[in-house]
Amino acid sequence: MTHTGRHFLQIPGPTNTPDRVLRAMAAPTLDHRGPEFAELAGEVIDGIRPVFGTTRPVVIYPSSGTGAWEAALVNTLSPGDRVLCFETGHFATLWQEMARNLGLDVQVIPGDWRHGVDPQRVADELTADTERAVKAVLVVHNETSTGVTSRVAEVREAIDSTGHPALLLVDTISSLGSIDYRHDEWGVDVTVGGSQKGLMLPPGLGFNAVSEKALEASETAKLSRSFWDWRPILAANEKGAFPYTPATHLLYGLREALLMLQEEGLPNVFARHQRHAEATRLAVRGWGLEVLCADEREHSGSLTGVIVPADHDADKIRAVILDQYNMSLGAGLGKLAGRVFRIGHLGDFNDLMLAGTLAGVQMGLSVAGVPVDPSGINAALQRLQLP
Amino acid sequence: MTHTGRHFLQIPGPTNTPDRVLRAMAAPTLDHRGPEFAELAGEVIDGIRPVFGTTRPVVIYPSSGTGAWEAALVNTLSPGDRVLCFETGHFATLWQEMARNLGLDVQVIPGDWRHGVDPQRVADELTADTERAVKAVLVVHNETSTGVTSRVAEVREAIDSTGHPALLLVDTISSLGSIDYRHDEWGVDVTVGGSQKGLMLPPGLGFNAVSEKALEASETAKLSRSFWDWRPILAANEKGAFPYTPATHLLYGLREALLMLQEEGLPNVFARHQRHAEATRLAVRGWGLEVLCADEREHSGSLTGVIVPADHDADKIRAVILDQYNMSLGAGLGKLAGRVFRIGHLGDFNDLMLAGTLAGVQMGLSVAGVPVDPSGINAALQRLQLP
Amino acid sequence: MTHTGRHFLQIPGPTNTPDRVLRAMAAPTLDHRGPEFAELAGEVIDGIRPVFGTTRPVVIYPSSGTGAWEAALVNTLSPGDRVLCFETGHFATLWQEMARNLGLDVQVIPGDWRHGVDPQRVADELTADTERAVKAVLVVHNETSTGVTSRVAEVREAIDSTGHPALLLVDTISSLGSIDYRHDEWGVDVTVGGSQKGLMLPPGLGFNAVSEKALEASETAKLSRSFWDWRPILAANEKGAFPYTPATHLLYGLREALLMLQEEGLPNVFARHQRHAEATRLAVRGWGLEVLCADEREHSGSLTGVIVPADHDADKIRAVILDQYNMSLGAGLGKLAGRVFRIGHLGDFNDLMLAGTLAGVQMGLSVAGVPVDPSGINAALQRLQLP
Amino acid sequence: MTHTGRHFLQIPGPTNTPDRVLRAMAAPTLDHRGPEFAELAGEVIDGIRPVFGTTRPVVIYPSSGTGAWEAALVNTLSPGDRVLCFETGHFATLWQEMARNLGLDVQVIPGDWRHGVDPQRVADELTADTERAVKAVLVVHNETSTGVTSRVAEVREAIDSTGHPALLLVDTISSLGSIDYRHDEWGVDVTVGGSQKGLMLPPGLGFNAVSEKALEASETAKLSRSFWDWRPILAANEKGAFPYTPATHLLYGLREALLMLQEEGLPNVFARHQRHAEATRLAVRGWGLEVLCADEREHSGSLTGVIVPADHDADKIRAVILDQYNMSLGAGLGKLAGRVFRIGHLGDFNDLMLAGTLAGVQMGLSVAGVPVDPSGINAALQRLQLP
Repeated sequence: MTHTGRHFLQIPGPTNTPDRVLRAMAAPTLDHRGPEFAELAGEVIDGIRPVFGTTRPVVIYPSSGTGAWEAALVNTLSPGDRVLCFETGHFATLWQEMARNLGLDVQVIPGDWRHGVDPQRVADELTADTERAVKAVLVVHNETSTGVTSRVAEVREAIDSTGHPALLLVDTISSLGSIDYRHDEWGVDVTVGGSQKGLMLPPGLGFNAVSEKALEASETAKLSRSFWDWRPILAANEKGAFPYTPATHLLYGLREALLMLQEEGLPNVFARHQRHAEATRLAVRGWGLEVLCADEREHSGSLTGVIVPADHDADKIRAVILDQYNMSLGAGLGKLAGRVFRIGHLGDFNDLMLAGTLAGVQMGLSVAGVPVDPSGINAALQRLQLP
Repeated sequence: MTHTGRHFLQIPGPTNTPDRVLRAMAAPTLDHRGPEFAELAGEVIDGIRPVFGTTRPVVIYPSSGTGAWEAALVNTLSPGDRVLCFETGHFATLWQEMARNLGLDVQVIPGDWRHGVDPQRVADELTADTERAVKAVLVVHNETSTGVTSRVAEVREAIDSTGHPALLLVDTISSLGSIDYRHDEWGVDVTVGGSQKGLMLPPGLGFNAVSEKALEASETAKLSRSFWDWRPILAANEKGAFPYTPATHLLYGLREALLMLQEEGLPNVFARHQRHAEATRLAVRGWGLEVLCADEREHSGSLTGVIVPADHDADKIRAVILDQYNMSLGAGLGKLAGRVFRIGHLGDFNDLMLAGTLAGVQMGLSVAGVPVDPSGINAALQRLQLP
Repeated sequence: MTHTGRHFLQIPGPTNTPDRVLRAMAAPTLDHRGPEFAELAGEVIDGIRPVFGTTRPVVIYPSSGTGAWEAALVNTLSPGDRVLCFETGHFATLWQEMARNLGLDVQVIPGDWRHGVDPQRVADELTADTERAVKAVLVVHNETSTGVTSRVAEVREAIDSTGHPALLLVDTISSLGSIDYRHDEWGVDVTVGGSQKGLMLPPGLGFNAVSEKALEASETAKLSRSFWDWRPILAANEKGAFPYTPATHLLYGLREALLMLQEEGLPNVFARHQRHAEATRLAVRGWGLEVLCADEREHSGSLTGVIVPADHDADKIRAVILDQYNMSLGAGLGKLAGRVFRIGHLGDFNDLMLAGTLAGVQMGLSVAGVPVDPSGINAALQRLQLP
Repeated sequence: MTHTGRHFLQIPGPTNTPDRVLRAMAAPTLDHRGPEFAELAGEVIDGIRPVFGTTRPVVIYPSSGTGAWEAALVNTLSPGDRVLCFETGHFATLWQEMARNLGLDVQVIPGDWRHGVDPQRVADELTADTERAVKAVLVVHNETSTGVTSRVAEVREAIDSTGHPALLLVDTISSLGSIDYRHDEWGVDVTVGGSQKGLMLPPGLGFNAVSEKALEASETAKLSRSFWDWRPILAANEKGAFPYTPATHLLYGLREALLMLQEEGLPNVFARHQRHAEATRLAVRGWGLEVLCADEREHSGSLTGVIVPADHDADKIRAVILDQYNMSLGAGLGKLAGRVFRIGHLGDFNDLMLAGTLAGVQMGLSVAGVPVDPSGINAALQRLQLP
């Protein structure tokens, strides 16, 4: 079947790159050591900070978000350091595996993939750590595999309540530019981001926002590093340069994407995502299905995980929807494979794109033989009639 | 209010230009007298014919569709010639005004803007024209202002039944590449087309498909012409050239658009448009509103005209929808202003774009205070669950 | 032979469309009746005026420059009106043929295709026309086929000296945005332009700048017209609209191109073209070849015609250069076919592109067996070392 | 001064991205876990191999070439391993610093930055290494900072002559797709590449071509790695996937670039670069200046280093050329700063672009007050008249 019209890319990222950004990227290559590039570099190096809620430097890598995970670890930690982690989902688990591969001592608090990090548990573990063996707490802000958003501000309070000196490292890959986040205010030490979600760019840029304390830690950290080393990058950035060739075209795109976020206003961006997430949950529950996230305080603004009835295969439903309705949805990952699909509603998005998305899910479920109450779509539309 | 995401351009043309076509057009300019251009010209000159249902030449102008209207007249008629016309809507009326401006004797059969050309009336008028004063019958195949499609094959039969030698000139601007059309089979003499509807291109190309009989008429036609003159164009086209600089970038785009139509297959293209038109009517009637087209045989595949309740202003509804839902709909034109809006569902389109469109209309009507039955959307979605 | 790198498009138009303009054109289609389009329309309708040197309206057609030729004639003249024309080259001749086709009485003053319009001859002819039969004088400002620029200001003075009321119609297709031109100051009545030369756009837009006197003439002119009629266009333009669908994407491009001309400054644009023309003539003469233009006051800033030695075929030389050096040059047209080639140096161009161009001509001549003095290139480079 | 026309980007990379590639990259984002992406992945994973001269896997990173340097080291070596290195220029030195930062024992053979790696010296050092402490020999194939190409095949023979088991790691960042290179035939163990030179893409992809022996080494190598680890990537690649989000848009571009290289044919690509390098040297010497590369066997096909007379500052000359002629040249790096500039003649390039480049250098030198013989340009043009 030949597909016509725009593909509905409703995975939780990479997201639809707006044509404005694509056109900004379709520009001729320029000399990355010349004055024109220095101006561009200055703009994006400064312009990215508010998106992280920081006034401090943000390191930009020509890499995926995975690379930025590695950067956060190798710049702050030494072989054998203990890190406290939480099994909130697939990506939290992958980050933990990476930490283990790099030679860290990874302490994992198990989880059910339906809840975020429990702040009380953080406090308990750090209180119990009387020897201060834990050097860092790793939190995934928004679990892309589940649609659960951990309460980072409360995690911060929990750490503070114990007086424990551990660093706080947070992955915001699928929340950055979509869900309210405050690197400075929440006292996060390293915030990890990527280009391909709320920033509306193609994949290929990784970010580390870095606190003063993290920078100090980097002076003594002993994990081997060269490409990921913050120090030469921060030094070069001060002159609008990079120590090695940057991904120039993604920086062209980043400049345009930052302008778009600025035009809309970050608070409006966050509110838009919350509103779409609410409408999506109303549809899901209207159909008679269950949302994966089990805590009302933790629903993600970026994506919604949907549990399919036990006698159906989520991947078959997704295949029907891709084939028949030209829409990509996110698969259940890891231990959720086949039991869950994920609806991305982040990035460059609007009410009618969401309406089309939810209509596609509703029709696809029907076509795939899953009994759904067709009033689901109208529950969402009613929400979308309000601001 | 800042708009995000893709604008829903649901006017009945210009339509969404697919990004494939935009990228094909973003190519460097080439020498329009060189060998590379000759190859391109050959491809589009040949490739456009099947879209018109003809094996004969199609003249391509760097102009709007309006220009192609003028070309159809000045190539075939002489000052004072009588043309038989039908008041099927706004664009039919404009074409008639043009004919008058050019010095033709325009005979107009009045209409209610809810029906197409009545084939019986054609037969009656031509039968009555015993002096053969009528030199051409002008028909708008798909009235963009109303969503009514005239039955051209039956008009042809009506003409034939009278033995009248009048030429048949047909405007397919908003049906070409969307609604089944057969220049050769239906014995049309000049078919007028444009680039910006079913062909999925930006505006800027006009077309005339030309029958043998029309070409003969052009030998003796006396309306003054130079730019629009078929003869030097057809002569140059045989060598892959044009007598004056063609709109090269739109031809790049045309090549890509023809490829897309070919990939999908014209019968599939037509069926897709019919299916979307049906789903749209189901929604409109589900809301409790009336479709403008009053004859079940004449519903347009390209667009649907919707009558708003007498106490509401269609333009205010459209303004609400544009502001709140980032969607453009077509206005009521001429004597339908304020009483009707038009939903375009043509060109590079798919089920979920239609679902988003109909959701936007439903929500917009509600927000604008028009009472609608929200089950309308589901009537459409049920149709879209079937092939 | 596979070509690599950028093609050198050194015909005298269409010119290299800058990537900025191509990217501006690669934008989604918008509603040509909506508020966003009205803003764009307003910008280009106003912004184009200074390029013509006028503060009065400029009509923009979705057409080639040829169409704008026709518009200039049909809006101001009546069947049988006499027009005074000059055989300055191929395009002047084509415009005269068009005038004849439209039913005008065309008086042609023969020429040798190496000189512009002789202002004295204009005065003589108009003085002789005691019956004021001549309704318009037609001048091609810059003959694209020869590289000769007529002295329009002096033609104006010549007309004025006779007190003759004839309109002055000027074709600036290959001078607009390249060579100093002043519609208002020089008292031109209709100035004809196109998009694809100094305006750096793809082909597809035609222009008419219109004097008060021309507008008055249009009230009584009797040549038939509808598509080309200025009046509905000027009326619609006042509200940021067009009476029929405009070539939206070329208007996107026009906005960007006008911005580029404004950034550089029109006097700088004109000076740049003159400087490149001078350098080109230095190279041509350095090679030992002759420039086609025979009057030092009339050298074109846009292009240079080069006479090839009598025993060589200019088209073969061009074929060698296209094949071997990936560069398109202009052919000799009409009676210059095979005897002349033309080097375009207009539009989005710079010193090193010119140096590459001249190097290519020099090498191509050598490869084609035309004896040339290789110091030609250095004569040009010496000029380009000066401002 | 406002620049017009195309910028001449004549640094030795990043190179001019052809508009074909830019347009291929300007496509909508797609699901990197869907079937359409798997097809793209398969094409580029296979298609990149011949460019390296290998039939074995090539790992593609979303990173700069610097990242691919790190990948080559961390996948094959363990802390404290000795690597034999040669000071052939600035980038060789940077790679050595990286090796040191990662904890390797770096043995550097000093050099004068005008010669490549001396194969005899390789043999001598390895012969002396009776304890087989050296685990790898690091060679930069084409020193981007000098324009000197090391003779990798002879280095291979030198290693073989000693029977030493050291791995051979080669950086081809500025030779890949420009200068003849044969990973398999020359027995290279890891070849490091980047996207932004001969591959004609923007920066953002790094490559490692991997021999069987290197893969075996990776099983026991102990440098910490996660992001750079070949094994999960090679495993995922077999299914057309990547273990983390790939730089999708650069892969779109890579597919197009590989097609362009295939259309031209790699032997033709290499010959074109050599021919342009020869012409460049003829110009440099014609001007009376000295080429940096001091060994006739080692001239680079990608770039030419030019020594400026002792009383001039190369950076001031470059600034004049950028300002006046809109051309970027490469600076002297490290200890060559101010004494040398570099002309890039690689990637998507042709004869007239080279002629423009050399004209710009010649004029810029003159304008900057460096005495040059203007016949330099003609020495180059004479070469370019031959195949």
